[in-house]
Amino acid sequence: MATDSVIDFKVWMSQVQVQMEIALDRYLPASTHIPERLHDAMRYSVLDGGKRVRPLLAFAAGALVDADPARLEAAGAALEMIHAYSLVHDDMPAMDNDVLRRGKPTVHVAFGEATALLAGDALQTAAFDVLSATTLTDSPSDQLKMINILARASGSLGMCGGQGIDLYSVGQELTLPELEMMHILKTGALIRAAVLLGSYCGTPLSDEARNALDHYAKCVGLAFQVVDDILDCEADSATLGKTAGKDAANNKPTYVALLGMKGAKEKAEELKQAAFDALAPFGEKAKLLHALAGYIVDRKY
Amino acid sequence: MATDSVIDFKVWMSQVQVQMEIALDRYLPASTHIPERLHDAMRYSVLDGGKRVRPLLAFAAGALVDADPARLEAAGAALEMIHAYSLVHDDMPAMDNDVLRRGKPTVHVAFGEATALLAGDALQTAAFDVLSATTLTDSPSDQLKMINILARASGSLGMCGGQGIDLYSVGQELTLPELEMMHILKTGALIRAAVLLGSYCGTPLSDEARNALDHYAKCVGLAFQVVDDILDCEADSATLGKTAGKDAANNKPTYVALLGMKGAKEKAEELKQAAFDALAPFGEKAKLLHALAGYIVDRKY
Repeated sequence: MATDSVIDFKVWMSQVQVQMEIALDRYLPASTHIPERLHDAMRYSVLDGGKRVRPLLAFAAGALVDADPARLEAAGAALEMIHAYSLVHDDMPAMDNDVLRRGKPTVHVAFGEATALLAGDALQTAAFDVLSATTLTDSPSDQLKMINILARASGSLGMCGGQGIDLYSVGQELTLPELEMMHILKTGALIRAAVLLGSYCGTPLSDEARNALDHYAKCVGLAFQVVDDILDCEADSATLGKTAGKDAANNKPTYVALLGMKGAKEKAEELKQAAFDALAPFGEKAKLLHALAGYIVDRKY
Repeated sequence: MATDSVIDFKVWMSQVQVQMEIALDRYLPASTHIPERLHDAMRYSVLDGGKRVRPLLAFAAGALVDADPARLEAAGAALEMIHAYSLVHDDMPAMDNDVLRRGKPTVHVAFGEATALLAGDALQTAAFDVLSATTLTDSPSDQLKMINILARASGSLGMCGGQGIDLYSVGQELTLPELEMMHILKTGALIRAAVLLGSYCGTPLSDEARNALDHYAKCVGLAFQVVDDILDCEADSATLGKTAGKDAANNKPTYVALLGMKGAKEKAEELKQAAFDALAPFGEKAKLLHALAGYIVDRKY
């Protein structure tokens, strides 16, 4: 990218991040609502943190179809609530037992386990509340499809299933296809949903275009996880904002363990290139999706 | 009720219970799906147990509007999945730490805490999957409303919020209005949603009729909890299929603690009568809702 485009992209990212912060603040119940502690915990886990990768993907896909920003905000908020709920529950002692997230104590450390459990539950519900209360697309039937896309992506055959496979694979030797299957569900499914939801918020796409977009999303989803594994090995906790090196310490299968650091980095590059290729038919309209794939693979935290 | 009607009602209940068992079996992913342990746990918590009160209410409300049974099954399955997820999480050590439910070990006892956490999460998602994948009513806009009704009823301003208030009230002195507020959210909201969802599966109701139905649902929801508190004091664990006397032992506020046993029983009767009164405009078509209110208040477990 030329320097100007890099600056434009960074400005766009910051704008979407600010816009999402305001939208999430509006969509989440106020801390003054009873029970206050539950609403505090929900807001603590969602607001003021996170790279907002999934909303960014939704907005970038929305740019392909001239989507209404208010619709993208709602879709982005639902995606971010699902993502946040999965982190809150994943960090709990019964799962990863993590104490640090986005540089802050995790929800169960700050609010106790019972509140963390309920806050995660209520955040998931809030996502479906937003998606069913707001007009997201011209056709209510398409909106039902969007809700179903999010449900499939985050349920036991999607994200939750991936977390299950991850859980049951601790200390097991996974093959590369098994590891890939796990991440396609655990991280990839929601990233795919983010791109698809964004693309539903504007002018309808042809099936061919939607398939190309879906291929982009699959590559980005997998690349995201490969890079996560690389960063978990290389970065320190302060840069990462969460406990580094945990996966290796927990004997969890990672791309780095399976492919070596060099192999993992090559894999990330290949996936980025495949994502770029998938965007070719969209031309200039896909420049945000293009830049985002680069950002996701080249990030340092 | 005359003896014949009692028999008819019991036959109808058994039929709906069997039908729901088959529907839930079909809607839940098979145990052979990866991750098998997660799907086993989801099926364990939902199948082969429970009175199916919420689906029964949806079917009874559906009878008012000549609803298609296939639609009622889908609505009933979603309601039961939400109910089951809330029980799985509520039983966990971080919350009520209960070991017995419906006469079987609770999910975290049988499958471990991590799986219980994920199974509850995935059951909630599965409910929204069912509601968005199946045609439930003639108008897709109305179906979006139905999804929103379930989300509002089960989120932090509904069921989850009620559980939060319950959690934060342990050892506190609650007034009767505070106790009522807690139960209206914790149990009442989902019972109301059950009646409303059923009523959306057929011929549209007038606003006036829907308000009357909603008043019925509020009374039944509250009566349900008052009777739960009475049974928790009076029944033994074997009859109840869960640990009896836990609320009192945990110093949780109950209707019996607040009103005395006699007062609590009078309250349940009053609510039953108010529910009956709300059904008056519907005549003979409401006979199942009528019988169900009687069943809920007069049950022994």
